[in-house]
Amino acid sequence: MQLKLRLEFDGGLVMGPGKAALLEAIGREGSIAAAGRALGMSYKRAWSLVEEMNAGFAAPLVLAARGGQKGGGAEVSAAGAEVLARFRALEARLLADGEEDLRALGDMVRRK
Amino acid sequence: MQLKLRLEFDGGLVMGPGKAALLEAIGREGSIAAAGRALGMSYKRAWSLVEEMNAGFAAPLVLAARGGQKGGGAEVSAAGAEVLARFRALEARLLADGEEDLRALGDMVRRK
Repeated sequence: MQLKLRLEFDGGLVMGPGKAALLEAIGREGSIAAAGRALGMSYKRAWSLVEEMNAGFAAPLVLAARGGQKGGGAEVSAAGAEVLARFRALEARLLADGEEDLRALGDMVRRK
Repeated sequence: MQLKLRLEFDGGLVMGPGKAALLEAIGREGSIAAAGRALGMSYKRAWSLVEEMNAGFAAPLVLAARGGQKGGGAEVSAAGAEVLARFRALEARLLADGEEDLRALGDMVRRK
């Protein structure tokens, strides 16, 4: 079973599994384009999700590196790392504390 | 902040906030059509969600009453009540146990 957690903040910002995976991939790949490719996500879609996060949070979650050898690169800010860590912590806690309910629900699903 | 939990089971069945709200409304209203109306959901959409749940779980979650004075009515089965209760329990536990992370994330959102 996959568990998908979406947080919808007042004002319309949504934080969900796609944005969390994108933050992780940007941290790993060092660029938004490479992160999008790694996730099978279009360049436009990856940029659009980054823009939503940067506009929606008080501090930007992704910082674009300008110029230098890594021109065009990007990295996850301290705020981005915190948002990601707290989102993953919520998912992990739900899996751990909700284990009994999740297993019972899984057992009620029709076997194909 | 609104928290939306979606469970995606192996085989494709999804259980999320829309189906949970529909089960509750069917229990309250006594018919699928009235439940859909109460939620601002089309009749077709409400039926389609009921069919997904009844096909996806081993036991049907919604039982249609046939004939009699309440012809056309529907009720939530014992299995439906259990699925709904466990889904709501998962949401409630997440809100309680994740309170610190949820509050911290809410505090990081840009004020409009």
